[in-house]
Amino acid sequence: MPTPTEGEVLVRILSVGVCGSDVHYYEHGRIGDFVVRSPLILGHETSGQIVEVGKGVSPARVGERVAIEPGQPCRRCDQCRTGTYNLCPNIRFHGTPPVDGTLCEFVAVRSELAFAVPDEISDNAAALLEPLSVGIWANRKAGTQIGSSVLIAGAGPVGLVTAKVAHATGATRIAVTDVNRSRLSSALASGATEIAVAGSDNVRGGFDAFIDCSGSSAAVDAGARLVRPAGSVVLVGMGADELRLPLGVIQQRELLITGTFRYANTWPTAIALVASGRVTLDDLVTSEYGLADVEQALTAARDPQSVKAVVRPALRNSSTTRGQNKVKSQAALGQWKADEIDP
Amino acid sequence: MPTPTEGEVLVRILSVGVCGSDVHYYEHGRIGDFVVRSPLILGHETSGQIVEVGKGVSPARVGERVAIEPGQPCRRCDQCRTGTYNLCPNIRFHGTPPVDGTLCEFVAVRSELAFAVPDEISDNAAALLEPLSVGIWANRKAGTQIGSSVLIAGAGPVGLVTAKVAHATGATRIAVTDVNRSRLSSALASGATEIAVAGSDNVRGGFDAFIDCSGSSAAVDAGARLVRPAGSVVLVGMGADELRLPLGVIQQRELLITGTFRYANTWPTAIALVASGRVTLDDLVTSEYGLADVEQALTAARDPQSVKAVVRPALRNSSTTRGQNKVKSQAALGQWKADEIDP
Amino acid sequence: MPTPTEGEVLVRILSVGVCGSDVHYYEHGRIGDFVVRSPLILGHETSGQIVEVGKGVSPARVGERVAIEPGQPCRRCDQCRTGTYNLCPNIRFHGTPPVDGTLCEFVAVRSELAFAVPDEISDNAAALLEPLSVGIWANRKAGTQIGSSVLIAGAGPVGLVTAKVAHATGATRIAVTDVNRSRLSSALASGATEIAVAGSDNVRGGFDAFIDCSGSSAAVDAGARLVRPAGSVVLVGMGADELRLPLGVIQQRELLITGTFRYANTWPTAIALVASGRVTLDDLVTSEYGLADVEQALTAARDPQSVKAVVRPALRNSSTTRGQNKVKSQAALGQWKADEIDP
Amino acid sequence: MPTPTEGEVLVRILSVGVCGSDVHYYEHGRIGDFVVRSPLILGHETSGQIVEVGKGVSPARVGERVAIEPGQPCRRCDQCRTGTYNLCPNIRFHGTPPVDGTLCEFVAVRSELAFAVPDEISDNAAALLEPLSVGIWANRKAGTQIGSSVLIAGAGPVGLVTAKVAHATGATRIAVTDVNRSRLSSALASGATEIAVAGSDNVRGGFDAFIDCSGSSAAVDAGARLVRPAGSVVLVGMGADELRLPLGVIQQRELLITGTFRYANTWPTAIALVASGRVTLDDLVTSEYGLADVEQALTAARDPQSVKAVVRPALRNSSTTRGQNKVKSQAALGQWKADEIDP
Repeated sequence: MPTPTEGEVLVRILSVGVCGSDVHYYEHGRIGDFVVRSPLILGHETSGQIVEVGKGVSPARVGERVAIEPGQPCRRCDQCRTGTYNLCPNIRFHGTPPVDGTLCEFVAVRSELAFAVPDEISDNAAALLEPLSVGIWANRKAGTQIGSSVLIAGAGPVGLVTAKVAHATGATRIAVTDVNRSRLSSALASGATEIAVAGSDNVRGGFDAFIDCSGSSAAVDAGARLVRPAGSVVLVGMGADELRLPLGVIQQRELLITGTFRYANTWPTAIALVASGRVTLDDLVTSEYGLADVEQALTAARDPQSVKAVVRPALRNSSTTRGQNKVKSQAALGQWKADEIDP
Repeated sequence: MPTPTEGEVLVRILSVGVCGSDVHYYEHGRIGDFVVRSPLILGHETSGQIVEVGKGVSPARVGERVAIEPGQPCRRCDQCRTGTYNLCPNIRFHGTPPVDGTLCEFVAVRSELAFAVPDEISDNAAALLEPLSVGIWANRKAGTQIGSSVLIAGAGPVGLVTAKVAHATGATRIAVTDVNRSRLSSALASGATEIAVAGSDNVRGGFDAFIDCSGSSAAVDAGARLVRPAGSVVLVGMGADELRLPLGVIQQRELLITGTFRYANTWPTAIALVASGRVTLDDLVTSEYGLADVEQALTAARDPQSVKAVVRPALRNSSTTRGQNKVKSQAALGQWKADEIDP
Repeated sequence: MPTPTEGEVLVRILSVGVCGSDVHYYEHGRIGDFVVRSPLILGHETSGQIVEVGKGVSPARVGERVAIEPGQPCRRCDQCRTGTYNLCPNIRFHGTPPVDGTLCEFVAVRSELAFAVPDEISDNAAALLEPLSVGIWANRKAGTQIGSSVLIAGAGPVGLVTAKVAHATGATRIAVTDVNRSRLSSALASGATEIAVAGSDNVRGGFDAFIDCSGSSAAVDAGARLVRPAGSVVLVGMGADELRLPLGVIQQRELLITGTFRYANTWPTAIALVASGRVTLDDLVTSEYGLADVEQALTAARDPQSVKAVVRPALRNSSTTRGQNKVKSQAALGQWKADEIDP
Repeated sequence: MPTPTEGEVLVRILSVGVCGSDVHYYEHGRIGDFVVRSPLILGHETSGQIVEVGKGVSPARVGERVAIEPGQPCRRCDQCRTGTYNLCPNIRFHGTPPVDGTLCEFVAVRSELAFAVPDEISDNAAALLEPLSVGIWANRKAGTQIGSSVLIAGAGPVGLVTAKVAHATGATRIAVTDVNRSRLSSALASGATEIAVAGSDNVRGGFDAFIDCSGSSAAVDAGARLVRPAGSVVLVGMGADELRLPLGVIQQRELLITGTFRYANTWPTAIALVASGRVTLDDLVTSEYGLADVEQALTAARDPQSVKAVVRPALRNSSTTRGQNKVKSQAALGQWKADEIDP
């Protein structure tokens, strides 16, 4: 049990979402330059309840249900001072070596990183404000706005929240591609107005923005070519080693290409979106596990029907609710041909 | 019957919305420096059907149902070349002296100013893409985005479309004030999350943006003080002679203040919003008139229940549907106290 | 002698510029809501040398010559997190009650607020990076860029640094107005391409931006009318109670109006500009005083020839060099008529 | 001799700069998808004098010395309406098949594409406002501002004007790389603060922006890695088929990558910069040819000492002034080691 120091709060964990990066660390022991060299607690999508406060924090916070922003920036460097603290070279991030994460019972965090959530937001949804933040950041970079047309490659959890945010922002054409047809079904439930099997070549171009959430080089290459002049390409998905794009496409269309690294200043927006019902997150949860079953949670994603597993330390009986979030009617499938839908 | 010249299309008018500026010209013969010196056809919120095309326009356009952008910029000046053609000093605008408007049966316009509308958009809604454009432009200037909090003063047609656009953009706090309680009821139906009688002092501050659609100096002064540091103030409403604001408020909060003059590049967005159902416009129409009853249409706004009158040249029997657009449940009234609601 | 706490450095003061706000506190005991209630050390334009470091700061910093950013923001609030820390409600600012300033021998400040300056920058110039920051911030808000035309009202120290920054940014038309002809002469030496006696009505309009550094309501009203459509108005000068502007001008030109409150993230830019010789600051200094003569320094500005007084604690003999910075040739005076020049 | 139609002016050519693309068409008959299928007049960097005006153009323009913007956009498409007319799919561009250029005696162009130039700008400099526009556009995309650090790969004419514009914008660190040491010498004369032989690995990173004007894949790869977090990469140079960049670099630094295609709205800026002396262009001209010697002009660039050849139709004796623009003192060579300098 950690003790909150000055400016910190002690949080009892209520829910932790399992992220692909957690799984990657678990299976491979590293992501790029980040190497797990000693035992590490994973987990960075977190909600909880404040049970104690350190010096300088109002005791009135005790009892608050909170969502935790997992990165603690230095607040002193150029990046912090200019508001892009996600690029802080000194940031300490939950579950990224050598900093422990939140797949445990209690964690002490800086008070300003624990955001109060209203009753409208469930414990699970509060945890999933973290992946929602990834989707908010991606759409900010893409410049999504009312009436925008957005192409999203990849319908995993990040692709789905990206589609949800695009929808909440008033984008009116939201096309999602994936190789996994079950995920495409979830995309339709997440605001997609069209879906297509990746590589199927039946997506019409002219998008204002393309957001890659797949990490597939083929998807990036195909997607970038479908963007209109002066449109945006945002690279969120990890996995591809290299971006390869014809220079002619970039120049003649003056494409704006960028990548995302986590997010900055997204929690207030995320809370407002979910509390107001503009974005739902509970529908992403396909299974819940107790703390004893973390290993199961970390391998849940091997099931193609799984979208998001969460660990609830207080839970006694793990359960899978997979498929609940599937869209009921598939009438609006658009470019998704009937014979391409999996049963 | 005008003849379309090169690059023009001839449009048979289907619906024309009546705007406050039409009424002002009708009653006062001028708006600021624009003076009606000879007989003038009013009207600039227009939908119709292409019946003939000039040289250089594809004959395939004949039969298209279209919404008309009423301003024809010169396309050569600095403002046109940089994309802010609404500020073109040479612009010719429907119903603004000395340029005739569209309260008639046929009008010839440049082909690129007649935007095809899909079946999902009614004739009336297609005409009302013009005031919707005012609301889109106001929100662009205000920087409205997902999770924004926006204060709108004035719940006339412009205030209502501004609220509708803020809602479609994902703003999660939308407060609307007006002196007319009937209009506040319409505001709730247009996306407002709170309403308040103007001057009632019961609106909590901290807004990301304040958009004045009232033209009232008192409203501008009150609204600007409710904006957070680095927030925006957008002046849409005409009527106040002068902006008067404490310098300290502007400086210590670094408020960003601007005014709007019409709009630029809004029709594609407006069409996408209405066609996708993100914004509805038909609910704003409270009465319809035939061409013979234009005078009645121009005075309809004197009825405090009236929101938007439209003239449909083909209509034989004018009708009033006032009140249809009133919100059914008033449960969510927020700061609007029960005794302030009119029956 | 203060002791540097963790993260702080102890700085021996080398030079402190006297600002109009220091004078105002000295003479009136308050500026707006900021009231001097107990003895207060003034001064916030500061250079010095690090003589000791607190815990957590590299000892290698001892001996560094530094320029001090006078505001210490909380780094936790929304404004700090988004990079506009100048609007932080918790900021502690040198010489603003109840926080002591730097008109003394030693001061302890946060290490990250003490910026190392290279040899190319004199002690006085290092102190004047603070007013230079005001000019940088004003030009950022104004959107000054290569080829811009900028109108600046007021040729006091802030107006002069604003002109210098506009010049360094590649603005090619820089008009400066003032009631004080001596100051106009300094403006010409600071990059102005035209000067005019305020109110003389002989400035041609069409400016991309107007930056008020005078705090005069008449100047703001006159200046705002000289801005082109879609241009900017930036209110830097304090003094006018109220901004009063015709609504028609703001709307029909869609002017962008804002105020400035100090600055954010300007020191690295300021250092680069002065070290590279793009901006000179030493020419602004018209008199130097020892610490014993602070009172003289605070009243120096009563001399109309004075531009900037500095206090150098180590100085034994105060001296006035007024007039040195006057432009030698007045050939390029532009709209300044010969008989308007003071001897 | 063409006849100016409505809205056009007839211009007698005074000077035409030879561009690498002219040479490429001359030698290869195509650039990408643009293929020369019938005899084509090359040339698009043009100055001249108006000798006749068409209907609707003020006769007062006759006699004006002008610089010609070579692209005539449609002014109707989405790109034109939003101000990025360089991306207009219908643009007609001088010397790009099938549109004839200006390497001739007279040309008729739209009046608004012929910009009056003041006496301060020579005929040659007026022609070179076109490549200067490329440099202005590149710097706009790069977000160059006062105090910026910019890395430029390639010191051909485009790299040199890009450096000149960066300097005029107040960039304080301007590093230029090239394989050709003679060109590096020109770079120093064009505002570079450091130069380095390409591939020599002795450039320190942390740049705010990297602008590639070399079209070399190796240069792009090396340059992109030297950009700071949240910095920009602008691809101006043609030649490389493909952009290949490590995804990790793009994501972890959130680099902003874009390409440029010509320019938009740059002539007023270019004229202001050259007329005010902020940018010089005459120093780029290394040889002049009469119209009879166009072939010589097109092959002049084979001489490594050549920077820019111009064709002056009125010239009788072609002359080469190569080397005149070489920097006199090479004291400030920075990272350029003495033994790397060619004699």
